[in-house]
Amino acid sequence: MIRIGIVGYGNLGKGAAKAVDANPDMELKAVFSRRTQGDDSLVSLRKHKRIVHLCPLYPVDYAKDMVNNIDVMLLCGGSAADLPEQGPHFASMFNTVDSYDTHAKIPGYLAMVDAAAKKTTAIISTGWDPGLFSMMRALFEASVNGGESYTFWGKGFSQGHSDAVRRIDGVKYAAQYTIPVDNAIKTVRSGQRPVFTTREKHLRECFVVAEADADKAKIEEAIIKMPDYFADFDTTVNFISTVEFLENHSEMPHGGMVIRSGFTGESSQVMEFSLKLDSNPEFTGSVLAAYARAAYRMSQEGLYGAKTVFDIPLSYLSIKDRPTLIKELL
Amino acid sequence: MIRIGIVGYGNLGKGAAKAVDANPDMELKAVFSRRTQGDDSLVSLRKHKRIVHLCPLYPVDYAKDMVNNIDVMLLCGGSAADLPEQGPHFASMFNTVDSYDTHAKIPGYLAMVDAAAKKTTAIISTGWDPGLFSMMRALFEASVNGGESYTFWGKGFSQGHSDAVRRIDGVKYAAQYTIPVDNAIKTVRSGQRPVFTTREKHLRECFVVAEADADKAKIEEAIIKMPDYFADFDTTVNFISTVEFLENHSEMPHGGMVIRSGFTGESSQVMEFSLKLDSNPEFTGSVLAAYARAAYRMSQEGLYGAKTVFDIPLSYLSIKDRPTLIKELL
Repeated sequence: MIRIGIVGYGNLGKGAAKAVDANPDMELKAVFSRRTQGDDSLVSLRKHKRIVHLCPLYPVDYAKDMVNNIDVMLLCGGSAADLPEQGPHFASMFNTVDSYDTHAKIPGYLAMVDAAAKKTTAIISTGWDPGLFSMMRALFEASVNGGESYTFWGKGFSQGHSDAVRRIDGVKYAAQYTIPVDNAIKTVRSGQRPVFTTREKHLRECFVVAEADADKAKIEEAIIKMPDYFADFDTTVNFISTVEFLENHSEMPHGGMVIRSGFTGESSQVMEFSLKLDSNPEFTGSVLAAYARAAYRMSQEGLYGAKTVFDIPLSYLSIKDRPTLIKELL
Repeated sequence: MIRIGIVGYGNLGKGAAKAVDANPDMELKAVFSRRTQGDDSLVSLRKHKRIVHLCPLYPVDYAKDMVNNIDVMLLCGGSAADLPEQGPHFASMFNTVDSYDTHAKIPGYLAMVDAAAKKTTAIISTGWDPGLFSMMRALFEASVNGGESYTFWGKGFSQGHSDAVRRIDGVKYAAQYTIPVDNAIKTVRSGQRPVFTTREKHLRECFVVAEADADKAKIEEAIIKMPDYFADFDTTVNFISTVEFLENHSEMPHGGMVIRSGFTGESSQVMEFSLKLDSNPEFTGSVLAAYARAAYRMSQEGLYGAKTVFDIPLSYLSIKDRPTLIKELL
């Protein structure tokens, strides 16, 4: 059994706990959270209509005393504040897997984690983007040298954009959905290779619950004109009631696709990968669990340092051994 | 420059030659064919409306004298008769890449090639199925442990089935298309996990040119009842003229998809990979070229023996170096 720990118990940490429970070669030893103070809490899961206790919930500081009890630590904190500190810190003690997703800062983060991972294997930036989508971009481009690759996100709930709307004065609740433009997808699928503006690829749709005395026109303007987040997109804002919000906008669906509109000679060659996820954090947690298996195996072979999804053969991810993989899936 | 040789100059060999020409870090040194006797032939390509001579076309026997001039040999022969002999033979002298696709016999073939590849890297069974589709089956299953994976082929031209029809008495030309059943795809995409019969997943459609005096009803019956090839499928047979055949059925489009209808807890998580290929042999040849890069790099690192797509990190396939890959595609 691969002994797993989880650092951070928000949406992603909960998804990862479920995923570890679903993988028969893994055992969840402990979850570490800043939000617990003592050692009397339990991590539990509703399973087949029963509550199953998985492991203890400890303060983050306890982790350093469990170096001999945990094979791989899944770092489920955020990329802005948590991982830049936690990534190198935990990689100095444990094999780690994280979903660091600030694309522009990945090379710097990789270097920091690599410097810390002297005797551990630290897999960074897994999940689906970065992660599976990155793998597809690399695989597609290598498979068909001629062409262009396109990434579309959604339709899906965006945590970062929802938070940005929530911070506007007078907003009580907010959910933001990123929606790829149908026509853009159709164009690429047909084998054309256009250059899109930001606005031509994605729409943004917001569902907002305003405070009773709030000026809705002002909120709408603050959203639509918000730089980086909304100004470059066609954005629609819908004001709804608290009841409607809680009923219809508390799930976290997401998805998207990578399409390569490629060519060989005169022939069009279109490759596409897509995800349709009912739960983004559960899916991301499930991918982290697969990479935990890889981190464990690579560390057993002495393949230390910071790794990315580009560095890891697929056989390291599978619960099946190589002969079985070859026999059943090749 | 990676110096490439090609063994076998049918549809796949021609596709591979085009692909090598399209990859700026590769150079085609020679093509080897049983169909040429001397050393005065050239392999040429129509490019930007001009004819470009790529390399000499030699008899297969010449290859053994070019061990020091070729880094990777692309084996473009068939899986039934050519590769079982050529795979081990060439792997004993060269780094090789092939598209061995007799799924049931892959473990035996792998063992034979591995025994021969003492000082070479021999990547077997690449292309798209086996190949990219195999990678997706392994990656999808590892990413979401719960669920079922489904592979659909087509709509596409099947060489093997077309040949089988062509061997029937009274058939002059034949093209067979494999067509996935729309409803089966829709069901899987919706997150259901049915068990399909062979008949429920794919249809087969044949276009046949009969000899002038042939009994069409007899030909149709011979096709529809042919065991293994057609008996388990709903098959339609269309008799057409030679002119119509040559005009509409001489391209080799293909494609298909791998779909995982997965779940985490109560959440449906659907993953899909699809290909829409105008030219099957050109696409397969292009994938072989990407794996030639991997074979070259692995052999440089002393990673000898027979390898599969499960054993090779994606970074080995890309023309980009690791820092560039991470910066641009992660």
